[in-house]
Amino acid sequence: MKIAIVGASGYTGVELLRVLQLYPDIEINQIISRQYTGKKLKEIFPHFSSSKLKDLIFSEETDIEASDFYFLCLPHEPSVELVKKLLEKNKKVVDLSAAYRIKNPAAYPEYYEFEHKYPDILLKAAYGLPEIYREQIRQADIVANPGCYPTATLLALYPAVKEKVIAENNVVVNALSGISGAGRGLKQQFHYPEAFGNAYAYSPIKHRHIPEMEDVLKNIYGDSITVRFTPHILPVSRGMTSTVIYKTNLSKQQLVELYRLEYRYEPFIRFCDTPPQIKNVIGSNYCDIYVDKDEKTGQAVVITAIDNLGKGASTQAVQNFNLMTGRDEEYILKNLSDTSILFP
Amino acid sequence: MKIAIVGASGYTGVELLRVLQLYPDIEINQIISRQYTGKKLKEIFPHFSSSKLKDLIFSEETDIEASDFYFLCLPHEPSVELVKKLLEKNKKVVDLSAAYRIKNPAAYPEYYEFEHKYPDILLKAAYGLPEIYREQIRQADIVANPGCYPTATLLALYPAVKEKVIAENNVVVNALSGISGAGRGLKQQFHYPEAFGNAYAYSPIKHRHIPEMEDVLKNIYGDSITVRFTPHILPVSRGMTSTVIYKTNLSKQQLVELYRLEYRYEPFIRFCDTPPQIKNVIGSNYCDIYVDKDEKTGQAVVITAIDNLGKGASTQAVQNFNLMTGRDEEYILKNLSDTSILFP
Amino acid sequence: MKIAIVGASGYTGVELLRVLQLYPDIEINQIISRQYTGKKLKEIFPHFSSSKLKDLIFSEETDIEASDFYFLCLPHEPSVELVKKLLEKNKKVVDLSAAYRIKNPAAYPEYYEFEHKYPDILLKAAYGLPEIYREQIRQADIVANPGCYPTATLLALYPAVKEKVIAENNVVVNALSGISGAGRGLKQQFHYPEAFGNAYAYSPIKHRHIPEMEDVLKNIYGDSITVRFTPHILPVSRGMTSTVIYKTNLSKQQLVELYRLEYRYEPFIRFCDTPPQIKNVIGSNYCDIYVDKDEKTGQAVVITAIDNLGKGASTQAVQNFNLMTGRDEEYILKNLSDTSILFP
Amino acid sequence: MKIAIVGASGYTGVELLRVLQLYPDIEINQIISRQYTGKKLKEIFPHFSSSKLKDLIFSEETDIEASDFYFLCLPHEPSVELVKKLLEKNKKVVDLSAAYRIKNPAAYPEYYEFEHKYPDILLKAAYGLPEIYREQIRQADIVANPGCYPTATLLALYPAVKEKVIAENNVVVNALSGISGAGRGLKQQFHYPEAFGNAYAYSPIKHRHIPEMEDVLKNIYGDSITVRFTPHILPVSRGMTSTVIYKTNLSKQQLVELYRLEYRYEPFIRFCDTPPQIKNVIGSNYCDIYVDKDEKTGQAVVITAIDNLGKGASTQAVQNFNLMTGRDEEYILKNLSDTSILFP
Repeated sequence: MKIAIVGASGYTGVELLRVLQLYPDIEINQIISRQYTGKKLKEIFPHFSSSKLKDLIFSEETDIEASDFYFLCLPHEPSVELVKKLLEKNKKVVDLSAAYRIKNPAAYPEYYEFEHKYPDILLKAAYGLPEIYREQIRQADIVANPGCYPTATLLALYPAVKEKVIAENNVVVNALSGISGAGRGLKQQFHYPEAFGNAYAYSPIKHRHIPEMEDVLKNIYGDSITVRFTPHILPVSRGMTSTVIYKTNLSKQQLVELYRLEYRYEPFIRFCDTPPQIKNVIGSNYCDIYVDKDEKTGQAVVITAIDNLGKGASTQAVQNFNLMTGRDEEYILKNLSDTSILFP
Repeated sequence: MKIAIVGASGYTGVELLRVLQLYPDIEINQIISRQYTGKKLKEIFPHFSSSKLKDLIFSEETDIEASDFYFLCLPHEPSVELVKKLLEKNKKVVDLSAAYRIKNPAAYPEYYEFEHKYPDILLKAAYGLPEIYREQIRQADIVANPGCYPTATLLALYPAVKEKVIAENNVVVNALSGISGAGRGLKQQFHYPEAFGNAYAYSPIKHRHIPEMEDVLKNIYGDSITVRFTPHILPVSRGMTSTVIYKTNLSKQQLVELYRLEYRYEPFIRFCDTPPQIKNVIGSNYCDIYVDKDEKTGQAVVITAIDNLGKGASTQAVQNFNLMTGRDEEYILKNLSDTSILFP
Repeated sequence: MKIAIVGASGYTGVELLRVLQLYPDIEINQIISRQYTGKKLKEIFPHFSSSKLKDLIFSEETDIEASDFYFLCLPHEPSVELVKKLLEKNKKVVDLSAAYRIKNPAAYPEYYEFEHKYPDILLKAAYGLPEIYREQIRQADIVANPGCYPTATLLALYPAVKEKVIAENNVVVNALSGISGAGRGLKQQFHYPEAFGNAYAYSPIKHRHIPEMEDVLKNIYGDSITVRFTPHILPVSRGMTSTVIYKTNLSKQQLVELYRLEYRYEPFIRFCDTPPQIKNVIGSNYCDIYVDKDEKTGQAVVITAIDNLGKGASTQAVQNFNLMTGRDEEYILKNLSDTSILFP
Repeated sequence: MKIAIVGASGYTGVELLRVLQLYPDIEINQIISRQYTGKKLKEIFPHFSSSKLKDLIFSEETDIEASDFYFLCLPHEPSVELVKKLLEKNKKVVDLSAAYRIKNPAAYPEYYEFEHKYPDILLKAAYGLPEIYREQIRQADIVANPGCYPTATLLALYPAVKEKVIAENNVVVNALSGISGAGRGLKQQFHYPEAFGNAYAYSPIKHRHIPEMEDVLKNIYGDSITVRFTPHILPVSRGMTSTVIYKTNLSKQQLVELYRLEYRYEPFIRFCDTPPQIKNVIGSNYCDIYVDKDEKTGQAVVITAIDNLGKGASTQAVQNFNLMTGRDEEYILKNLSDTSILFP
């Protein structure tokens, strides 16, 4: 099986390479990056200098015939078109952009500033959160890989929303993200001396991940649930935690049982006795989760932690790849957690 | 005027020394620290080695007669007793512990594991948040200096609660704090290699600052308001931001006007056009604030940033000291912001 | 093969567990930690909660019969005795302490404050730097695993010292280390708020790793070479870089050729075109190396980077384990670099 | 007195503003920045939003008549010309670039890639290290403010070089610098996710600060002294430490006495009993210094710490300003250390 990584020099592309190089049975035959066309992988990313991929050369254009499976790590708008072309060639695609995540095309002009030209493909695309849409993913040719905030948040909400134990159709979500979530492009506020020791909320009202979350929630719940979402910047490279609050009549014990039951066969959901810490999931595909109830206010408190580049992006893309190609879902990914190096 | 710092070797004590050394008209005649009894200030904290305070010697016991004004930076329970003794000697006290913050004595056994012996003094103590209780502070002999989370959160709520524009008596608060908020005592989770690159929620249901916040809110509002409060650890030394969500019928413009009106004469409240960043308040007594409205969900989003050791503790204690001693409230504190060094 | 990790809850012990869990063909049947006796691995270190080792229970005492191979991660003095006992039972041992690193017993009272009771075992112990002592390690029952600074420094010096191209028998070494090198025990200077944003030299004259380096250099060179060594604290969890300066008559090209020739078959030495960065070796057993010449001063400049817990401690211990047990030296270790997660 | 800051939006420019705003007796009447022409200071740097300078507007061009005193924070080459023009107008100038630091014009094409057009002004310019050239600075119209590495290193060498107690005309210097030293311009290697947790040597042979150091050393010593200099990147915003090694026949006691005698009246040199820590000098004009001797190798070990933006740039520029304008050298600068906030 021949694999292409389109947009291979961004953080999600490089993270895909880190994981996919561990597969003995695939060939990565295209890595595309306009910025580094003609350069070898090891020249740009020296930590690959002892990898079997080290001499891969970045190419400028995507050959839409040469590979069997395509991971797209592009900006949203170019992805719209490329997915279309790849599907016409009967290729399988995991798209890490938002180009095919939201079923409702009206969200695109409002949140992404472009008109979506292929609403039919939108409907066909599976939303790549295996804990919710595993069967659709297995059958799909195009999987829209979820955003990092939606992954962390939806996994905190899914059992409650599915079982309709939410007592009010509004949830309050506060999430913290490492700076790699903002990508590899240079920005003044992420210049090291300026981001050092700093933290803050941003996009306080209208973050792009809100329609994505609400779209999935509506699909599960049948009715609309609004998400009051505040993301925050953490001065770390990787890691994300999401604190989700909603009204419920269930007790803590009932909530915990509900979540444990729903996720009992999930290989990448780990329950924690205290709120999860980002360092325990860095580099892995795990989503650590904590479920509690504030009896005084009648609100559930569900907290998740993921690696924004792992379960929040690239390792989840690989999980989807495993499903789409008939592999064991845990293949390779299982061992990644075993090599966590963030302790200490 | 002779000043004592009791518990002078903890972070709030050292921060008080940093600021009080700039006063030309006071004498710090006692610094008390059991841990460092007999040592000079400069030996333990070399950044004071060119300060006029450098040769101050830590003493073991507090002389309750020798000073005119006492700052207490002690654990909660010892503070209860020492305040009582100092008041009997007609001393003025700012207590940075929680010993006299909550009017309702029942909160102490529930949240602090001790019975409060002096409920009469509890009633007499002014809560040291000048933006709310300025006049009481001016008259008080004992000021209970607020906790860092209550400071950041109450300043985000006060105008709305005072004007009763909160449409539901529950608020959802998510706050992030630098690790200095946990004090100078050693703990495994705050050993550098383990806290490095990490972040997480903690005390997700029952943090000690909740009754303090609810006590003040009830005092302002007349009726109970519950606080759903989730604090998070940030991998930085100093800084705090609090994101406060509540239902309201006011528009963004109305909210902003309400807050600007209420705080129009406040010297240490600064309004921001984007969510405030902790680096802009580090080392200062400022509280930066951002006010917005999520029209879709009908919720106000108010975000504050303070230095947890500044407006969240020691510089606020100095602000109270200025008020209690008839000084200009901004004295010395005004210039601290001008020397902020965390940019970059 | 049954494996024991003695002192399994320190950073080097936990790092050994991270790597050894990847071996399909061994059984870790003892993890010893007085601090956590009776606790499960996953309770203390949650990042192991999905590992096959998760339910291992820390035991209090080392059973010197129950395992075949022992990794000792103990303080220096207790290691002296335990090694002796294990050798009497014909066990194989990799000792990560300094107990058996220095051939000259006189160094112990001077640098480690104890008299060494077993100078005969000192002579028998192989120094566990495979790039220099591979054959001795293969044959040894007891391998003294090198210190982190000696590993980084000796690898920068070995080819030049072996080939006697050093023009003066003094070298100047400046090294930087992440704080995990100081261990897991709590210290005020490594409390997060105090180590945050800080850096400094320490032990400027007489660091314990100096006699270890000089002992090996003398063994290679035949004559004494003094090491002027200044270590520095870096505010990171892991990583080390060592800058080594020595006089030489060789040109840059000759130096590079000499080093490349000497290390041409070394699987864990990687040559770099620019000074190596710690992030490229974190979590791996690699030593990245850069060789240059300052023609103006006549000095070679050789710079290495390792993970202080990797090639500087635990993965090097595993490399020695591979050699001592007849495995391929790169077994398991090869793939660790492929999972480096420090980019970004 | 009217002051201009040319290049006011870089880190050294902003740091000058932080300090100069504390002067009651000057007027900053020009802040020049092409990037932010027309913007107010507080819009770009919100931490100035409560400063008296907050409404200063960045202008595009430097008015060479409108101010009395000019601080230049420009790239090297533009500074050459602007200094010339300002001197023709009889203005006083502190130039923070390297344009006038080196007496020997041949260094410019070799290290800075331009021919220096005004060697006569080079000779006239005072080198702005007051501990060495105080009297020249007092008389000068143009002061070339030293580089950060030369400041930290020359202060570690000056007493020994002046008294000719260096036994060999080569010194080995290893220095560590926070990333703000590389300026405010965006670079991939200083994008936060890539610099996070990283450290490394750079410019290992031919750093631009070498001719500057050697030029001053020759001026003091009479004869050439070569500097073997290796700088390293520290993952912090601010702070620098330099470890300087040289052969000497003096004992530790003699060295300490020599340094203490030479610096006995220096207000900004502080002697330390252990190697200095960068956090103790951040935000100040202090240079902390530690002097020791390695008797085994016959080498002195002198270690300094400064804030690269403080004594290494902007506060030293202010110290020069104080001297050039007849003020007390410690004016304003003395209190900066008292407001250091990096503990913790």
